[in-house]
Amino acid sequence: MIKTLGYAAYKAKEALAPFTFERRDPRDHDVVIDIQYCGICHSDVHQAREEWGGSLFPMVPGHEIAGIVTRVGPAVTKYKVGDRVGVGCFVDSCRECDYCKQGLEQFCTQGMTGTYNAMERDGKTLSQGGYSTTIVVDENYVLRIPDTLPLDAAAPLLCAGITLYSPLAHWKAGPGKKVAIIGLGGLGHMGVKLAHAMGADVTVLSQSLRKEADGRRLGADHFYATSDEATFTKLAGTFDLIINTVSAPIDWNAYLGLLKVDGALVVVGVPEEQVPVGAFSLIMGRRSLAGSLIGGIQETQEMLDFCAKHNIISDIETIAINQVNEAYDRVVASDVRYRFVIDMASLKTAEAGF
Amino acid sequence: MIKTLGYAAYKAKEALAPFTFERRDPRDHDVVIDIQYCGICHSDVHQAREEWGGSLFPMVPGHEIAGIVTRVGPAVTKYKVGDRVGVGCFVDSCRECDYCKQGLEQFCTQGMTGTYNAMERDGKTLSQGGYSTTIVVDENYVLRIPDTLPLDAAAPLLCAGITLYSPLAHWKAGPGKKVAIIGLGGLGHMGVKLAHAMGADVTVLSQSLRKEADGRRLGADHFYATSDEATFTKLAGTFDLIINTVSAPIDWNAYLGLLKVDGALVVVGVPEEQVPVGAFSLIMGRRSLAGSLIGGIQETQEMLDFCAKHNIISDIETIAINQVNEAYDRVVASDVRYRFVIDMASLKTAEAGF
Repeated sequence: MIKTLGYAAYKAKEALAPFTFERRDPRDHDVVIDIQYCGICHSDVHQAREEWGGSLFPMVPGHEIAGIVTRVGPAVTKYKVGDRVGVGCFVDSCRECDYCKQGLEQFCTQGMTGTYNAMERDGKTLSQGGYSTTIVVDENYVLRIPDTLPLDAAAPLLCAGITLYSPLAHWKAGPGKKVAIIGLGGLGHMGVKLAHAMGADVTVLSQSLRKEADGRRLGADHFYATSDEATFTKLAGTFDLIINTVSAPIDWNAYLGLLKVDGALVVVGVPEEQVPVGAFSLIMGRRSLAGSLIGGIQETQEMLDFCAKHNIISDIETIAINQVNEAYDRVVASDVRYRFVIDMASLKTAEAGF
Repeated sequence: MIKTLGYAAYKAKEALAPFTFERRDPRDHDVVIDIQYCGICHSDVHQAREEWGGSLFPMVPGHEIAGIVTRVGPAVTKYKVGDRVGVGCFVDSCRECDYCKQGLEQFCTQGMTGTYNAMERDGKTLSQGGYSTTIVVDENYVLRIPDTLPLDAAAPLLCAGITLYSPLAHWKAGPGKKVAIIGLGGLGHMGVKLAHAMGADVTVLSQSLRKEADGRRLGADHFYATSDEATFTKLAGTFDLIINTVSAPIDWNAYLGLLKVDGALVVVGVPEEQVPVGAFSLIMGRRSLAGSLIGGIQETQEMLDFCAKHNIISDIETIAINQVNEAYDRVVASDVRYRFVIDMASLKTAEAGF
């Protein structure tokens, strides 16, 4: 077994604290990864604080993992020691269902195995995430991080990046298409960069104009405040695709009205409450309200390669592990531009508190 | 001007009664149609009773019109006297916007001109519908009813038929696809016939099993009661496409759960209230909730030709005009298999009450 240092939530609503645990020795197809950086996703906070229910403790969060391969199992063919790799939101799936076979492992009919806060497929080991020194993952669930991407700013691509890339690709964002991104946070800022690189005409719909300069720097062609009611009149019937990255409850009907005929409003942020939807909002214009969930392994690799080709990384603020609780509060307050990334070297310092 | 007999709602919540009015003399591109049959759509009831607000009175309802051309304007090229024709839900549109040019006149950016309960494009003439002896319509908004289709049972194709055909075609119902139709009423029974003819595997989701024999006769391969909770467990993740024809409020989330990955739940029935939708219902499986609104002129003709090819007509109950108020109550009570059609010859009898 591999002794591992991490930070864990020992129970809901408690600050994360030092936690020592063991990773399995590599099986035939396993890759052992020295974690160098791990991004902080808003869903880490939701799960560590048990805001979605059913949390499993102790929980080491983190599913935006970037590091270096330090050891491989005897049957591993895809990676070798020294490779720059990443791990995203899941580390296994059934591999047998139609969706797994189609590369849509995120929709595995038996359920994907979350990188943390999940039971592994042995039914008894709790999976533990990336706020830790080491992780052991089957090579088929490991991504290659292209050489041109720095590991720290590439880490958030593993969740925030693919969460936006997948719907943009699926709904064919590209030249001639008008795409709007609701919310300019960790997810939204990736959406702007990716949609712009795909060639779409990109609009940010943000609560206020406070982040306009930033939005335009990231690649937005237009920027509107949703607190201004005139925005909804002016932009009626404008967009082919709108991606909603906001998890606060907003009026989906108002945004459906901004779509062209056959346009889609795709939800990637998850409000706690159900949202009322009017049938006429959908019927008038054959509009769709849809959802999207991260992406499969193959598509995540495609996204990383796309990012390398277009020089896309996340805008990050790097922190030490002992700043994680403060960072959580700032994530909740949307006070980060645009993603916190934990430098795991800090786990091995005296300040980490082991 | 052409003297016309009809039945009108003089104001909301009053019984329909005899009404004499005038149609315009044919303009260059107009076709004068002797109406032989007109279907009763649930939306006739909603509008005559002003349940959707904004009704314009006196109102002659009816947008499932079948008849014979009796006269044409001098520039008409598409139709001649004696042709069997139909008129559906709209009789004009701007003809200039992108949607009109694409044959999606139902989404005309200036608004299509409803066959009744609408202002014509002159801004001063109230449009009047098919519960009448005659209608005058621009040839570009007239449909040809193939010779093999009886006019009475073809009339409901002009609204109920196209309302189901369009989403089935758009979302590619066909061989290898599993399609469910929620509700076996006027809309639903057309959906079953059409989806079956397109080659899809067809399931009816009805409140009870009461109409099962009927559903199977119409072309359903499977029939389930939605009052049985086991239905939702058994059919989870089954369908590529579900069309909701029910305007009563139902839990859309439960039906979203019956979709495969990338499946769509398409709403064609309009509940009065907004329906709460959970983001997870959409995100888990990249599912779509969409709407569809009748179809354009070209697609409506395609539908009529498809029906002729596959011998599809509506199951109807023919009534005289003086039975229309009773029929309205039965439509509201879902007591019709499956569409009332008014025989307009009855307008010229003593019983009509003129």
